[in-house]
Amino acid sequence: MAEKNFTPAELYDAWPLLSPEERIEGFEFLQRDDADDFFLQLSARDRAQLLLALPVGERRLWIRLLAPDDAADVIQEAPAEERDNLLSLLDDPTRREVKGLLDYAEDEAGGLMNTRYSRLRADMTVDEAISYLRRDARAREKTVYYVYVVDAEEHLLGVVSFRDLIVAARDKLVKDVMRTEVISAPDDLDQEALSKLFMRHHLLMMPIVDAEGRIKGVVTVNDIVDVVQEEATEDMQKLGGVATLQEPYLEVPLARMIRKRAGWLAALFLGEMLTATAMGQFEAEITRAVVLALFVPLIISSGGNSGSQATTLVIRAMALGEIRLRDWWRVIRREVVTGLGLGAILAAIGLVRILLWQGLFSAYGEHYFLIALTVAFSLVGVVLWGSVAGSILPFILRRLGFDPASASAPFVATLVDVTGLVIYFSVAAFVLRGTLL
Amino acid sequence: MAEKNFTPAELYDAWPLLSPEERIEGFEFLQRDDADDFFLQLSARDRAQLLLALPVGERRLWIRLLAPDDAADVIQEAPAEERDNLLSLLDDPTRREVKGLLDYAEDEAGGLMNTRYSRLRADMTVDEAISYLRRDARAREKTVYYVYVVDAEEHLLGVVSFRDLIVAARDKLVKDVMRTEVISAPDDLDQEALSKLFMRHHLLMMPIVDAEGRIKGVVTVNDIVDVVQEEATEDMQKLGGVATLQEPYLEVPLARMIRKRAGWLAALFLGEMLTATAMGQFEAEITRAVVLALFVPLIISSGGNSGSQATTLVIRAMALGEIRLRDWWRVIRREVVTGLGLGAILAAIGLVRILLWQGLFSAYGEHYFLIALTVAFSLVGVVLWGSVAGSILPFILRRLGFDPASASAPFVATLVDVTGLVIYFSVAAFVLRGTLL
Repeated sequence: MAEKNFTPAELYDAWPLLSPEERIEGFEFLQRDDADDFFLQLSARDRAQLLLALPVGERRLWIRLLAPDDAADVIQEAPAEERDNLLSLLDDPTRREVKGLLDYAEDEAGGLMNTRYSRLRADMTVDEAISYLRRDARAREKTVYYVYVVDAEEHLLGVVSFRDLIVAARDKLVKDVMRTEVISAPDDLDQEALSKLFMRHHLLMMPIVDAEGRIKGVVTVNDIVDVVQEEATEDMQKLGGVATLQEPYLEVPLARMIRKRAGWLAALFLGEMLTATAMGQFEAEITRAVVLALFVPLIISSGGNSGSQATTLVIRAMALGEIRLRDWWRVIRREVVTGLGLGAILAAIGLVRILLWQGLFSAYGEHYFLIALTVAFSLVGVVLWGSVAGSILPFILRRLGFDPASASAPFVATLVDVTGLVIYFSVAAFVLRGTLL
Repeated sequence: MAEKNFTPAELYDAWPLLSPEERIEGFEFLQRDDADDFFLQLSARDRAQLLLALPVGERRLWIRLLAPDDAADVIQEAPAEERDNLLSLLDDPTRREVKGLLDYAEDEAGGLMNTRYSRLRADMTVDEAISYLRRDARAREKTVYYVYVVDAEEHLLGVVSFRDLIVAARDKLVKDVMRTEVISAPDDLDQEALSKLFMRHHLLMMPIVDAEGRIKGVVTVNDIVDVVQEEATEDMQKLGGVATLQEPYLEVPLARMIRKRAGWLAALFLGEMLTATAMGQFEAEITRAVVLALFVPLIISSGGNSGSQATTLVIRAMALGEIRLRDWWRVIRREVVTGLGLGAILAAIGLVRILLWQGLFSAYGEHYFLIALTVAFSLVGVVLWGSVAGSILPFILRRLGFDPASASAPFVATLVDVTGLVIYFSVAAFVLRGTLL
């Protein structure tokens, strides 16, 4: 491996598989130009690791390549004891900006914003504005697409794009060219709400303002793409019954991986113990009719699966804003119908299966038809209950102020397992009374 | 409802809850300016519904407001019999562009691109370029941020931003200002791969080229945000065991909702029937020791839950590109250690629970300690197997050319249920031989 000379693209592909030493070796081998581009493609996490693995003397060069918001992200990813060291590598004005950014939570608008944006005054002409921007170093930043028009106190008055300036007549005033209906966001807005604003208005860039309406920075849609991915990953991991991993799967230390999964798994296990208690209540029935025990996994897993479907659909629809809290009654009505339909389909399949096995192998004794009916009715009840419980649980969690995605599929399955047993044995007691029971 | 006058923001919020008639009423009430903005905020699906609900005479006005790619999306969302009608409302050049776009699949780069972009020649001066762009109507489109430099055959030579032109000296040539290392994508590239290119290079806009390197259109990052959301939704729905819904949850007709869910649910049910067969094999053991049946749901659900965790983590990591096919062996090794750790934790909890209940209620008879050991050993085996099976199934599916996300959590749970029973009763046969069995 040490002998191999990577191209930048090869190095990028191999990156997750390389040891820290191999990463440094591969990186040091790149041409300076390639290395710049390569460094800018890495995630904040990988950048922090690489920086800290480089000799102290080389770190300054690389961290100064970053815009203040990217530098802040890298510093946030570094261990606490390294942060002051990294901060000291920045030049004074950048360090002040980065410190300001570090005061924001990572998941609010202020924590995503770039503090390098271009400003104009409203009473300049277009020609003056172009001359001014030609001299303004900030306008040379690659991430600048819009220029914000502000008053002397930095209050946001309007916005012009470079395109607007190019296509406008030279002698017009900036205030006659600018758009005044600027969609901006407060600096403490949650990143998920911010991403919805971006998507709804198809924005490329949004100014972030403080409580007094003064512009503090800008967020670009590229940051929003990352937010959308991150939020989807979080929801998916919660839905799968795992506490959110902060790192890529292969890089989570095993002890932490076990801890992240053990919490939910143990909680679900404690809940699932109620099934042993529930089964214990029906021990007499099982002793009299062992055949009943054979269908327990089939019945409860059908409830779990239908619950998992319902909860997945509702949680995702909530995250996309398709379902609001006030829609709960419409959702329940839909799930009652859907659950009955799905339950009937499974009941039909189950009925056919039991009658077929009885015909072929005489598997279930003389009361096979009553057993088949018990299974069929239970399936309708359990699937109906699974669909309704799975769809309504996210509403209850959100209403109580929790994240609806905590209604993970395994959580719903556990809930439905316990109640499914009660439904099954109650139906059995009713249908089989006087014959098997 | 009909009496209420909505503001645009109120109408946008209420939209999903309104009937088609209420939507038209609310929309017709808006000021013309607000209505324009409002129409542009709607999704392609909602736009198509609104257009078709409007009187025929008004449709032309609205569909002509859309860029060719947006018009193509709307036409794709309309029922097949309405498409020609909608196409005929466009002006001739737009109709030709839209028809060209409709030839691409919805999920490839060509299906996402906008055909309205600005072009320059390499040997113009910056001053000539600015004058040219001032006259070029295409440069006035809101979605244009970059200008592409092409030769006489439309081959892509380079790119300049409006910012580059503004900050450059007037007498420089475009070819001296343009960046020649343009990242472009072929028109048949899958939208998921396209979104990865955007994210990796932090792009705002990407030119789409045909096999001969001629520019055909541009995709903006705003379209990529939608792609990322859409792909995450698809993966999440598959993971929950539902065929992908094409519409928002509340708008899927109930019959279709049942169909989308019944397929997987019935398939899982058929698979889960093997549990009844497996349980049947152990009917003699259950008859002799009914107490064994009590722990069946607890054991198999623990396997299902750990499998669901593993499969969720691996599928998401694959989608994010953190895990590649060749990483399968590293993943198995991690899951073996994790599964053993998690199994040991659950086994310890289970052991304590059984000993406690025995102490409190004498619930499990004289051989309670052997039963506790059976449950504990089975838990280690089942959780280990669940973690390994759940993590490896996505690899197998991808290797066979299927979507790894089809390894839904319910699918893994079903697989693990059947094998979990075999593990449990095998452990029981070994531990309890000569005592209970």
